[in-house]
Amino acid sequence: MAVYTDVSADDISAFVADYDIGAVLTFKGIAEGVENSNYLLQTEGGNFILTLYEKRVRAEDLPFFIGLMDHLAAKGINCPRPLHDRNGVALKTLCGRPAAIVSFLQGISLRRPSFAQCGAVGRAMAEMHVAALDYPGFRANNLSLSGWRDLAARCAAGSDEVAAGLEKTILDELAFLEQAWPKDLPMGVIHADLFPDNVFFIGERLSGLIDFYFACNDFLAYDLAVSINAWCFEADGAFNVTKARQMTAGYIAVRSLSPAELEVIPLLCRGSALRFLLTRLYDWRNQVPGALVRPHNPIPFLQRLRFHQHASSAAAYGLEPAALA
Amino acid sequence: MAVYTDVSADDISAFVADYDIGAVLTFKGIAEGVENSNYLLQTEGGNFILTLYEKRVRAEDLPFFIGLMDHLAAKGINCPRPLHDRNGVALKTLCGRPAAIVSFLQGISLRRPSFAQCGAVGRAMAEMHVAALDYPGFRANNLSLSGWRDLAARCAAGSDEVAAGLEKTILDELAFLEQAWPKDLPMGVIHADLFPDNVFFIGERLSGLIDFYFACNDFLAYDLAVSINAWCFEADGAFNVTKARQMTAGYIAVRSLSPAELEVIPLLCRGSALRFLLTRLYDWRNQVPGALVRPHNPIPFLQRLRFHQHASSAAAYGLEPAALA
Repeated sequence: MAVYTDVSADDISAFVADYDIGAVLTFKGIAEGVENSNYLLQTEGGNFILTLYEKRVRAEDLPFFIGLMDHLAAKGINCPRPLHDRNGVALKTLCGRPAAIVSFLQGISLRRPSFAQCGAVGRAMAEMHVAALDYPGFRANNLSLSGWRDLAARCAAGSDEVAAGLEKTILDELAFLEQAWPKDLPMGVIHADLFPDNVFFIGERLSGLIDFYFACNDFLAYDLAVSINAWCFEADGAFNVTKARQMTAGYIAVRSLSPAELEVIPLLCRGSALRFLLTRLYDWRNQVPGALVRPHNPIPFLQRLRFHQHASSAAAYGLEPAALA
Repeated sequence: MAVYTDVSADDISAFVADYDIGAVLTFKGIAEGVENSNYLLQTEGGNFILTLYEKRVRAEDLPFFIGLMDHLAAKGINCPRPLHDRNGVALKTLCGRPAAIVSFLQGISLRRPSFAQCGAVGRAMAEMHVAALDYPGFRANNLSLSGWRDLAARCAAGSDEVAAGLEKTILDELAFLEQAWPKDLPMGVIHADLFPDNVFFIGERLSGLIDFYFACNDFLAYDLAVSINAWCFEADGAFNVTKARQMTAGYIAVRSLSPAELEVIPLLCRGSALRFLLTRLYDWRNQVPGALVRPHNPIPFLQRLRFHQHASSAAAYGLEPAALA
């Protein structure tokens, strides 16, 4: 949960007056998004979300994110659609912070997705990948290999206090991934953080994808690996192969995966597990007294990493090409 | 801000199925209320607030609060109206906590109320007082004299670390109030916490009162004293006599204040300032590591107390009967 910036009634009324959405009826901080301040905004024109971008989001990346949501929404993807004010501007300033109003998406985040819901996530991800193929923006993934090396330098030393052997596990894995990481897979814009918090459902129907603030250009199949880590492990740490198979089947119903992409799924899953292990470990070991957000435990991603280290091929994920056909 | 209890999509869908409000469309934790977990709930039937009552609210008091909102809403007061399920039950259980769904009120909380808005608060408070006169529930004010003595015993000692001379100020004030506190003013159900956070406006129009979880039976004029402390001091600590006069004029337009009530306003303001000084001091000195709510600074209520100690009569508040006629 997070509402970092205090916005007064006068502030929001003056801000909303720049748009053609009528007067403010309701304005409430909501517990959604850990990087930014988010508010439910009801006006005479409907329901919206106001986001104030806090310091963990780089201001120079915001045009990429806002432009991406504009691009995807125009292609019919159910994602927040940035509102433009009377001068056509979507990215504005409020209380000294970059700020934007986006459309409100109905739906609920899931805790225990069904097989069908995992399939719907794979399908929606592929639709997003395809819709973004002609998006002209570019943003490098600063949380890929070189970013992991930087993070490890700042949090691996002494991490055995979190789990025995963790420092060596991280450094060995980094060394392995630096020599094994693929170089020539299909690329495009990926969400890069498509966890259950960021997908809304109304019943079995996927109603929207949110929180594009880690989106970047990278291997498309890496996004699938992120979501396998995010959706296909149970609370006790067990891998659910049926969920992975459903998610991948949903994906390839929209965009096919080449044999080369399928083959490196275990490797991409290792990298993605390391990415979340490192960011969570960093936040876990650098807790800010009085912070409003409790950091996630990194250990579940150490467990996922160990699972992927022992997966010899895509078959361990139920992803043999024949099984998906 | 506060969302203490994690409610899953399955939990909320099963809970909502007991009511005639259709299926769940949206469910988001909101940053409103510091004692409970509050969620925005949108269903096919409309917008609602779901509240889970956390440990600072005593379960045995909940029927009083729920019954009061039912009573007030039935009399046309703009307050949250508890929903009753198909069996007529309003106070239920969710995730092991007492829980209730109430109607959603539009509006925004103010930071800098205008004179007219202060008048509207006085009027709405008096309307609430009159509407509750025949409410059959009774709840003693556990944050009146004896409660202050208990709180002081737990937080006054050593409080000079917060402000020089604070411990003596508290004990002297308590001794004074214990001999001077009135005994025979008109009583009824009061809100007891009508701060700007708990009043919604749409423009200049007061659209609702919320958060009745300190409501209790006490002197009606004490509620006015609470709101003078809550609304009529500026950010720099200065008393705004025009706001107090507007608020009181709004009140007596609906319910007259007797000369006896007017005469003790300074005394009631002293008691109310001490009440918030003590509860804030207690929370300030007992901060829980990792808590999601930052405690309020108690010092502004020490400043208010000192103002009231030097107010010789209701005239210091612009409240001479002639001025209000």
